[in-house]
Amino acid sequence: MTSLGVNFLQHYLRTVSSEVPYQIAELCADRGITDVIICPGSRSAPLALAFLRSKRFTCRTFSDERSAAFVAVGMAQQTSRTVVLICTSGSAGYNFAPAVAEAFYQQIPLLVLTADRPREWVDQLDGQTIRQSNLYGSHVKKSIDIPQGDGHPDTSWFSNRSVNEAISLADAMPRGPVHINIPFREPLYPSKESTNNGGSHSVRTIIPISSNRILDETQWETLVKTISQFRKILVVPGQYEDPGLVQVIQSFQRSHPWAFAGDILSNFHSLQFYCRRADTYLGQLSEEDLASLQPELLITFGKSLVAKNLKLFLRKNPAVAHWHIHEEGVPADTFQSLTISINTSPRYFFEELAKRLKTPVSGTYADVWSRYESKAEGAVTSFFRDHHDGEFAFLQKVMSSLPDSCNLHLANSMSVRYANHIGLMSQQKGIRVFSNRGTSGIDGCTSTALGHALASSAPNVLITGDQAFFYDRNAFWHNYLVPNLFVVVLNNHGGIIFNMIDGPAGLPEAEEFFVTRQALNAKPLATEFGLAYFDGAKASLQEFFKAERQAKILEFETTQKLNTSIFEAFRKHIKKTYEA
Amino acid sequence: MTSLGVNFLQHYLRTVSSEVPYQIAELCADRGITDVIICPGSRSAPLALAFLRSKRFTCRTFSDERSAAFVAVGMAQQTSRTVVLICTSGSAGYNFAPAVAEAFYQQIPLLVLTADRPREWVDQLDGQTIRQSNLYGSHVKKSIDIPQGDGHPDTSWFSNRSVNEAISLADAMPRGPVHINIPFREPLYPSKESTNNGGSHSVRTIIPISSNRILDETQWETLVKTISQFRKILVVPGQYEDPGLVQVIQSFQRSHPWAFAGDILSNFHSLQFYCRRADTYLGQLSEEDLASLQPELLITFGKSLVAKNLKLFLRKNPAVAHWHIHEEGVPADTFQSLTISINTSPRYFFEELAKRLKTPVSGTYADVWSRYESKAEGAVTSFFRDHHDGEFAFLQKVMSSLPDSCNLHLANSMSVRYANHIGLMSQQKGIRVFSNRGTSGIDGCTSTALGHALASSAPNVLITGDQAFFYDRNAFWHNYLVPNLFVVVLNNHGGIIFNMIDGPAGLPEAEEFFVTRQALNAKPLATEFGLAYFDGAKASLQEFFKAERQAKILEFETTQKLNTSIFEAFRKHIKKTYEA
Repeated sequence: MTSLGVNFLQHYLRTVSSEVPYQIAELCADRGITDVIICPGSRSAPLALAFLRSKRFTCRTFSDERSAAFVAVGMAQQTSRTVVLICTSGSAGYNFAPAVAEAFYQQIPLLVLTADRPREWVDQLDGQTIRQSNLYGSHVKKSIDIPQGDGHPDTSWFSNRSVNEAISLADAMPRGPVHINIPFREPLYPSKESTNNGGSHSVRTIIPISSNRILDETQWETLVKTISQFRKILVVPGQYEDPGLVQVIQSFQRSHPWAFAGDILSNFHSLQFYCRRADTYLGQLSEEDLASLQPELLITFGKSLVAKNLKLFLRKNPAVAHWHIHEEGVPADTFQSLTISINTSPRYFFEELAKRLKTPVSGTYADVWSRYESKAEGAVTSFFRDHHDGEFAFLQKVMSSLPDSCNLHLANSMSVRYANHIGLMSQQKGIRVFSNRGTSGIDGCTSTALGHALASSAPNVLITGDQAFFYDRNAFWHNYLVPNLFVVVLNNHGGIIFNMIDGPAGLPEAEEFFVTRQALNAKPLATEFGLAYFDGAKASLQEFFKAERQAKILEFETTQKLNTSIFEAFRKHIKKTYEA
Repeated sequence: MTSLGVNFLQHYLRTVSSEVPYQIAELCADRGITDVIICPGSRSAPLALAFLRSKRFTCRTFSDERSAAFVAVGMAQQTSRTVVLICTSGSAGYNFAPAVAEAFYQQIPLLVLTADRPREWVDQLDGQTIRQSNLYGSHVKKSIDIPQGDGHPDTSWFSNRSVNEAISLADAMPRGPVHINIPFREPLYPSKESTNNGGSHSVRTIIPISSNRILDETQWETLVKTISQFRKILVVPGQYEDPGLVQVIQSFQRSHPWAFAGDILSNFHSLQFYCRRADTYLGQLSEEDLASLQPELLITFGKSLVAKNLKLFLRKNPAVAHWHIHEEGVPADTFQSLTISINTSPRYFFEELAKRLKTPVSGTYADVWSRYESKAEGAVTSFFRDHHDGEFAFLQKVMSSLPDSCNLHLANSMSVRYANHIGLMSQQKGIRVFSNRGTSGIDGCTSTALGHALASSAPNVLITGDQAFFYDRNAFWHNYLVPNLFVVVLNNHGGIIFNMIDGPAGLPEAEEFFVTRQALNAKPLATEFGLAYFDGAKASLQEFFKAERQAKILEFETTQKLNTSIFEAFRKHIKKTYEA
């Protein structure tokens, strides 16, 4: 081999073995990533040190990987930027999996970096070694195995290119998690004196310029012409969060009185003409009433609806045509009626559509929806005027006292349903609503809210039940101050949803195996983690929502019996309203 | 279609849609499964009810699926019987994954039943729906998707056969977890009055009769002849737990003075001629000393060693021939020297070998090991005579005060290392040692010990550090009394192992991102869950180990600085012993 050859070999060997972590960190920084979550471990030390020493990131550490990954989900959701997650080899990476699945279905960008043992040591009974390739199955957009340094220039090219691809892919619509698995040989730590930040080595950044998706005039003509054939047009936004879009729709509605119906996760509560209570009354109407609401054209965008009655209504009374607006990817056929999927942003769609729609449809169909909505509005108001006991009424008070411009986090599964029936008012327009409805798990609701609180200076209010709260209690096991996190715990000592839904209620096995009655309250936890604790039965909400040094917990303890009967009364009250 | 045809169709439709859960429960009971862990959920209700109503199982419930799955690992390990794990759809099943990986590498039989939405609803934005097929990747022996009822007899045959296969496979050597994913359509609950236990429907059980693996005389002749060529024979048991085998080896050693060296996880501490301290001194010997211990023939069995120095020694000083004895499967080549793998049980191997070995090897090589071992024995004793401070000395006191016939659980990662250096004495022969060394995670050590405590009346003593203890704190979130669980927490307020191993110690980033200093102590947790709390600095160990109504916690709080310096002094003390 020539001396030039030897130099090349040495250069690449060095590059691939010890420079990969620095390359990843550099590429991440160059591409605008700012937040990194590092779970402690030895095999991952080269990665952790590369990000820490680059000085271009805010790095935080959490010991429980399950919680850490949900924190990353919250941060990425709040900032709309990819968050890097780092863990050591072995089962650590598997603890990320629930949050990775949530990110996949909520289309939240994560770059998951799992350190691995060298390939040769898999299944050889060495510690913290599992089969990490493709660890997250089909719940990541891609899973990349960084090759071990073999000295060939192509190996180095592959690593650099793959990391570029991974960063691009996480942020490309539909966004989502991407996994990079990186094997490391010992030594895993630099010498104590070394402060090498790897910055001197060249890193090639591949920058994707993402173009806008627009429709051409022929396409618009067809759409506009089709719209003119329908009189009953209903727009249903699923889970979505874009204040700019709300303004566009507000302006659209001035000329085009279409019906808009969604739920609390649609984040359209500030819209003036908006049926926010569809879920509350659609389950209580007669077949005849429901038929009068059946749309001819259904237009949807966004992700899942928590409003089960709205979903069932649209499946049982399908539109003739159903258009779904979405940036990229294959849309879900949630209502079993999809006929056209339109590949652009909802904001562009409504802005451009408004310019092109000449003859507005009559407001008759929207008026029908409005009448039902007003009735529900009155019924909900009168219900809470007469019912002050139990967690439902308590939550109603909390929701009407929320700080302006807060992020409202709704835990699964009863909390988000309660909150949806209560609703937010149009004057609460600064409030952004979030909920882990990608997988609808209770496993990381608190950690996700914590991620938001760490990434934003706004107040973050979490509404949670006791099951979700205690499940994810390691969300409080960290060393960061989050004065902007306010946790409201509706503690009914079990999974009350199993009493609310039809089915388990009354079964002899319900108490032990479904509701799983539990005796804890949140006070010991608050004391343990140094959080201020407020008793919901006595505390002033104004006092509670004052930011202090550390997160706060407001707990409202009630019995399941009381809450079950109140919610039943609420259902009956609504039903009666429409029978009258 | 003839009337017979219609009857067939109806029968099978019914069988596949609603009878599958009852078939699974019946098959499990018929095949000797007794313990079931049910995590609460609606989609899984048909499964939960089938097991509950069969009355042939002990069913328990845990809300945190991660902990629940490790409890199952512990129960299956303790009873040597497959344990059934049930969860609802969505991310619930992903929370099982860390324990599933542990079970896979420790070869512990689990039958993981995940309830699923109907296939058609995957990716359609419905709640708790993820891509559950093959959820655990290559960390299960098999993943089976039960088909949805299509009325065809073959579908029913497939379900019945697959469940039979899954049960057989989990229990076949090498044992391990098997996954069955079962979609359910609504309604998920029977009527309130129904007490149907499904027992009236025929279920076909396929029983595997497992034959014994024995060697024929020609094979024995070859092995015996080969053995006669070696003078230096070393037997190294990895993680293994079979009191019967210890007796066989005891008797084998009377005629054949081979060297036996292992660690605390080998469970050979009651053996008289046994080098239990290899890990303690092999890291401190000169190259020359090490060479004198190099084996010619290495015989191994069992799973992983925690003794890193023993592993490194065997890799650097490889035997000419290395035989590994194992029931089934492809063995790991842990020491990079494997030449023959022998497919039978270690007990059979040594029992039969003893009968056939005519000329015993000289005891010279075993004597060399014995001399090193005695020296270590003396050094460890003298060290603890002079050092009474810190968690290492505290643990030495705990380990010499353990209840007779207890199960000793060693958490990752510093606890198991400390305990290995301290060792168990030959008179502590009733003690069985367990540790999650399949993946060596800290994620479920407490839950695994809890599983043992639930499945056995023996005292179960867990030695754990604060990181593992607080990580898995949901192990205490359940409604069962475990008076036989004793948790010893060595609380040094962080991951002290990062100060012990070479590498991170001294790095500027070590404190925050590796050790992750944490301020908690275990008292609030003990109070919260109603557990008796003992302060290790004051409490009498005798008092602590008395069984009372509920589990107990003994916490020993120390500083990292003290422990780090003591462990450093221990290493130096051992080194000096061998230099003298």
